[in-house]
Order: sequence, then C-alpha cells, then structure tokens
Amino acid sequence: MTNSFNHNIQAAACGTSRIVGCRFSLFPMSDRFVPIILGALEQTDTSKVWVQSDDVSTCVRGRHEHVFDVVKSIFLQAAKSGEHVVLSATFSVGCPGDTEGDVFMSEDDVRLNEGNKTSVDTAAQFALYPMGVPHYMDVIYDAVKAAEAEGTFSGGIHYASRLDGTAQQVFRSLENAFVTSSTKTSHLVMTATISCNSPSAKPEHVQRKGE
Amino acid sequence: MTNSFNHNIQAAACGTSRIVGCRFSLFPMSDRFVPIILGALEQTDTSKVWVQSDDVSTCVRGRHEHVFDVVKSIFLQAAKSGEHVVLSATFSVGCPGDTEGDVFMSEDDVRLNEGNKTSVDTAAQFALYPMGVPHYMDVIYDAVKAAEAEGTFSGGIHYASRLDGTAQQVFRSLENAFVTSSTKTSHLVMTATISCNSPSAKPEHVQRKGE
Repeated sequence: MTNSFNHNIQAAACGTSRIVGCRFSLFPMSDRFVPIILGALEQTDTSKVWVQSDDVSTCVRGRHEHVFDVVKSIFLQAAKSGEHVVLSATFSVGCPGDTEGDVFMSEDDVRLNEGNKTSVDTAAQFALYPMGVPHYMDVIYDAVKAAEAEGTFSGGIHYASRLDGTAQQVFRSLENAFVTSSTKTSHLVMTATISCNSPSAKPEHVQRKGE
Repeated sequence: MTNSFNHNIQAAACGTSRIVGCRFSLFPMSDRFVPIILGALEQTDTSKVWVQSDDVSTCVRGRHEHVFDVVKSIFLQAAKSGEHVVLSATFSVGCPGDTEGDVFMSEDDVRLNEGNKTSVDTAAQFALYPMGVPHYMDVIYDAVKAAEAEGTFSGGIHYASRLDGTAQQVFRSLENAFVTSSTKTSHLVMTATISCNSPSAKPEHVQRKGE
C-alpha cells in the first residue's frame, strides 16, 4: 500500500466523495507511551472505518459520525491512563481525488464507541481551513459563533481558537464545527490539538470561565 | 494579554504584515517531559522572535528565518534527550489582522541557533493550505516537486506529504516549501508533524529510499 504511494504526491493521494478522514497522532507524555497508544487503539471499535497507521500517525476514514467517534474514543482510552495525553489531528473532507475507503460510506450511523462516557477536563486549540473559496473567513467566524453558543469557546489566539470543557463537550463542538462548515465549501480541513491531564495551569481567563 | 482575547475569535486574532508565525507543541514521550520541554525552550535563543506559551502550545512570531531557526532548535534540543520526541506545528503568514509582534520584523536575518548541528534521523508529515485562492492545488504540487528535487520527499499519504532525512534536511525542505509557497498566495498555512527517535519502523519504501 505505502509502496504504491512512493511517487505520488499529496494532491494525488487525496475523489469526489464526501468521505471524511482524520490523520492524527496520540502523544502520551509517559515512559509507557507504547502500551498506552496500542491499548487505546485496541480498546476502540474501529470496524466502521478504514484505518492505517505508520510510524508518525494514524489515518481513519469513513462517515463523519464514525471518524469522530473513533478519534474521541482513542483519546478517552488514553486519558484513562491518567498521564498527560495530547491528540493532534487533521480532519478533512473533499480533498481532490479522495476515494480510497469509499466502501465504508455504506455503514449505518450507529456509533460503536458511544458507551465510553469517560469525563476528563479537556482543552483544545483548533483551526478551520475552508479551501479554494474567497469567503473562508466567514465560514470560520460562523463556526466560532456556534462554539460560543455551545459554551465551549474560550478565546481566540494566534492561528487558532480555544475550546474548554469535558472531552465529550469539546469533541461535540469540534464535530459540529467541522460538519457545519463542510456544507459551505467543497474541501474543508480542520486541525485540532486536544489535551488533558496537563500539569500546566490553564490561562487565567479560562479558569474564570465558569464563574 | 490572554484576557483581552477572551471574546475575540480566530479571525480577529489574526493584519496585513508578512510576519510569519508558528504555533507548535513539543511532545517528549517520557516521564521527564517537563524538563525536556522547558530545557529545549531555555537552550534556544529566542531573542529575535515574539514568544508566548500556554498550557497547550507555544507561539513564536517574526521573520521566517528566525521562526524556522527557533522551532528547529527547540526540536533539536529535545531530540538530544534520546527520547521519542514529536513536534507538531502550524506555520502561518498573511492571516487577516495579523500585526502583533511586528516590531520583530526589523531584526536582521542572522540566525541565532545555527550553531546547533545535531544530526538526528527525522520523519515529517506536512501539508500546505494556501487560503482563499482557487489554484491552491497547484501551489501544493509545486512544493512537493521541490521537495522531490531536494531528496527529502518520500511519498504522498492521505492529507499529507512525507519527508525523511536528517533534522537539518527536513527543516530545510519545510522552510523552502513554506517560503516559496508564501509568494503565491496572501494567506498561507503549513502544518507539520516532525518525529525522531521513534521505536516504530519507518514504512518499507522509506527504508529502501537510499538504496
């Protein structure tokens, strides 16, 4: 598989279907990072998505429900270790040429990992990149307004917007931002850095958010 | 500072200058992650860039020479620990409204951390996002062709292109891709996941690259 990509390029590896994908890396800041990563992958039901891992990252592809379900589950499973864990992800839909794994688009919409209700205080920094359209800043503004209404938005920073809440709340806002924005452009990318169990204090304005 | 951002949004926090920025997180997969991160920051001369850290990431801003110099140095310093270390970064230029830190644009172009010649085998997965223009795929194709000519390109994967080489080679290709592409669009974003000392084997076609 990888071999066939040898002389391809980013563009060539990307169809016309609305298959959603996420390339992510899981970073447990621990000497036990290998079992934590492998355990999180094993404890997550990935049967409704295409999956491929390499030495740098893992890619999951399919319906958006299952892509977000799987990525959230992997984060939650790793969070249970109690270690400082960060998941860095790029979500994408509509990348030109993107068809591999289309068979997974015929899955139903029943999420396989909804049973994991692990609650962990989570911070995320995310950015939306609506490609090929001049009105991309409007798409971003609208998504941020939606996150404000959901109560998770906690400020703009250079190159990103911040979300705070439980992992369940943060992932819900990320999925909403992605799915809503994806209706406004053919090719949408969203990046997110999602963190829990950090020994560093959150910024003061975030700590005061609930007051 | 952060407080004033409280009710801003991603767009509002982003001018018209060509100041380059990078928001990155450093992930040492080790129980010693705190001293490794703090040590890498302390051992890097950041006097020619604007710097701000929070609990999730660090943002550096200034001339592209210094942004890439500082980010590379931080990666190299952390790599010296021998631990599996990954740096996840978003580079950006031309984000609408992006002026804070413009004073750093008057620095000269002498890089402050060039003395660090640490050599470490490095893998990177990167993606370019030229914003607001219909020809964005052409910008991406050209950058990949340039990396092929430099010898670092090692294949397209979903949502990214892969680079392999020493850290010095990989960072040079990343900077070239960013700087060249930034002349073709007003607002350019590049993401990169940069890894060293991983216990996982590189894909077979990458291992055979030098043969």
